[in-house]
Amino acid sequence: MNLLTHKAEHVLFEIDGPIGRITLNRPERKNPLTFESYAELGQMFRAAVNATEIRAFVITGAGGNFCSGGDVHEIIGPLLERDTKGLMQFTALTGELVKAMRACPQPIVAAVDGVCAGAGAIIAMASDLRIATPAAKVAFLFNRVGLAGCDMGACAVLPRIIGQGRASELLYLGRSMSGAEGLSWGFFNSLVEGDALADAATKMAADIAAGPGFANAMTKRMLAMEWAMGIEQAIDAEAVAQALCMTTNDFRRAYEAFAAKQRPVFQHD
Amino acid sequence: MNLLTHKAEHVLFEIDGPIGRITLNRPERKNPLTFESYAELGQMFRAAVNATEIRAFVITGAGGNFCSGGDVHEIIGPLLERDTKGLMQFTALTGELVKAMRACPQPIVAAVDGVCAGAGAIIAMASDLRIATPAAKVAFLFNRVGLAGCDMGACAVLPRIIGQGRASELLYLGRSMSGAEGLSWGFFNSLVEGDALADAATKMAADIAAGPGFANAMTKRMLAMEWAMGIEQAIDAEAVAQALCMTTNDFRRAYEAFAAKQRPVFQHD
Amino acid sequence: MNLLTHKAEHVLFEIDGPIGRITLNRPERKNPLTFESYAELGQMFRAAVNATEIRAFVITGAGGNFCSGGDVHEIIGPLLERDTKGLMQFTALTGELVKAMRACPQPIVAAVDGVCAGAGAIIAMASDLRIATPAAKVAFLFNRVGLAGCDMGACAVLPRIIGQGRASELLYLGRSMSGAEGLSWGFFNSLVEGDALADAATKMAADIAAGPGFANAMTKRMLAMEWAMGIEQAIDAEAVAQALCMTTNDFRRAYEAFAAKQRPVFQHD
Repeated sequence: MNLLTHKAEHVLFEIDGPIGRITLNRPERKNPLTFESYAELGQMFRAAVNATEIRAFVITGAGGNFCSGGDVHEIIGPLLERDTKGLMQFTALTGELVKAMRACPQPIVAAVDGVCAGAGAIIAMASDLRIATPAAKVAFLFNRVGLAGCDMGACAVLPRIIGQGRASELLYLGRSMSGAEGLSWGFFNSLVEGDALADAATKMAADIAAGPGFANAMTKRMLAMEWAMGIEQAIDAEAVAQALCMTTNDFRRAYEAFAAKQRPVFQHD
Repeated sequence: MNLLTHKAEHVLFEIDGPIGRITLNRPERKNPLTFESYAELGQMFRAAVNATEIRAFVITGAGGNFCSGGDVHEIIGPLLERDTKGLMQFTALTGELVKAMRACPQPIVAAVDGVCAGAGAIIAMASDLRIATPAAKVAFLFNRVGLAGCDMGACAVLPRIIGQGRASELLYLGRSMSGAEGLSWGFFNSLVEGDALADAATKMAADIAAGPGFANAMTKRMLAMEWAMGIEQAIDAEAVAQALCMTTNDFRRAYEAFAAKQRPVFQHD
Repeated sequence: MNLLTHKAEHVLFEIDGPIGRITLNRPERKNPLTFESYAELGQMFRAAVNATEIRAFVITGAGGNFCSGGDVHEIIGPLLERDTKGLMQFTALTGELVKAMRACPQPIVAAVDGVCAGAGAIIAMASDLRIATPAAKVAFLFNRVGLAGCDMGACAVLPRIIGQGRASELLYLGRSMSGAEGLSWGFFNSLVEGDALADAATKMAADIAAGPGFANAMTKRMLAMEWAMGIEQAIDAEAVAQALCMTTNDFRRAYEAFAAKQRPVFQHD
């Protein structure tokens, strides 16, 4: 897949300068996911490694909601007919989406309004940054459909964002986290009113895109790579990574701009 | 030990429907632990794996306090007479309690009022969820008795609940965390007044117990198992675990209830 | 280096009873670091293992600012002339400072006012405890100079202090964290007015220094050692460490003081 020319079938996809904007777009049903949209999203984020013109993503939902999760009729029903191997194929497919979101070098900003449930909550969680409205309701509601909270990495990732105790509550009770709670707990980076959400997410993505692209990708890579590393090893890994970044032209550009009392214009090489 | 028929000697133990309620019950001394109560608690939580009728625990203290920690006269004094091997036997015993709490498949709700100190603070920390009153005072006061903060897993677990900086403060200074601080920092999931504490903890445990028991146990297992795993490995581990949960009857029950516009009644198989 | 007799060349260093106070002291330029001060700081913290008379450090900056980071003219400019090997020597040097801060057995209290940027933010982050003023501005601004957020361990350590989402925002955007944000997010342990900062940091260090020195050093060692350990392994590691602490004289002193209804006077052996 060439992401720059990709015609998305199961989501909306627009390229707006250096920003790739993905919109989950089945607003009449609060933007549920299907087998097809899971697969396409995963493929798109995998393809992003070659789409260097894109330097940040925004992912959002149409019509005042983010995503209602896996469609009950199109996913949960058919899963009940699957054998063991078929179930593993499904959970591997959904896990692949999160892996692809973490592997893509561009930071991803989730813009969350309204319902953000199940796999929708996971997509928000798996993004790098999150902006929401006060009306956002994020529910890791897997236990409400008879499943475990360990879906697509939630037991590893959610505790690192909001703490082990709060994550446990959300995963054992399946209750919604409000926008205000999410801000207070560090799940959301900021809250804005609904009519300001798209602009706020675009601005955050644009600010990231204006930064040094190679270095931002390295930050993302290392945040993932150091997840379960000892401190000494992490420091050693960063010494190598940062020395590499010091060989980029953007490092020189920043210095020269500083010396000239100007703002650096990064070119991402 | 058969937990369902166990007559507890050193704590109170009641089974209330699907909830096992453990009460530290030496209120005249703020419920200190002894060698015997450490051992019995560890054995009870280990036995819980076979007590599938119990689907959540509440642990609390009698008389307006949670637990004052290891008894000075019954534990600290005798420890001073022990040789190296004897000291290791003690720290292995206390560590075994935390291991048993993490290994038991049922989520544990700690209901904390008043004094919650030393090993009492550890028991609260090692629970899955925590409700407190504004009068709760949680003190990891090991350094006040000449010991290190690394007791029973505190240096690993506390930072993941409240963050590395706040955990460091509590462990280096031994000072109390108030109920309000604990709520703000994510140690407590909620605060209620003292006369509402027992009901609030029972309600939270009942809500968990009404959920899918197999899946909840899987959530607990994976939260522990993914503690020090890389993100990719965690996602892979969850894909297997969730596929297994999709073979349970409760997953089907939830779907059928949804299709019938009813609330699912889980049967934990 | 004998830290007790060391005459610091590139920072101020005073020994005040059991407290070692390090002051970054180039106030006219907001206390930037140089190759020399990086090296001296690293050597001082490494030497601290033998300076058992010192039981806590305070690190601060002169003239109302903490530290403006690596000096643009004295560090960034020369780095642009270095070859690959030379760049690695620099990042190894800076990483060594954080390793030395984590390896030194004494807890370190950072007292932060005003500008705290780049490597300055890292020094605050790598300390054990942090007190600030409302005027503190902490900026992990590496991306503003064309570099990645993975500097000196930031991608590993910062998320454990303030959470993965907030850390991502600071590292991708390079924006300042205010004193109030830092308090709310758990980066700062407390906020005081500027004229109370030195006393507050000294008091916190003195409170730590009055505690049991061997045990406090063990707490620090274990907080680092358990960073990426499983829960069971962490509990086992703490059982050994705490059993060792139970053989110290300070453990006995605390018990005897308790029995005599006195406050223990620890002697750190």
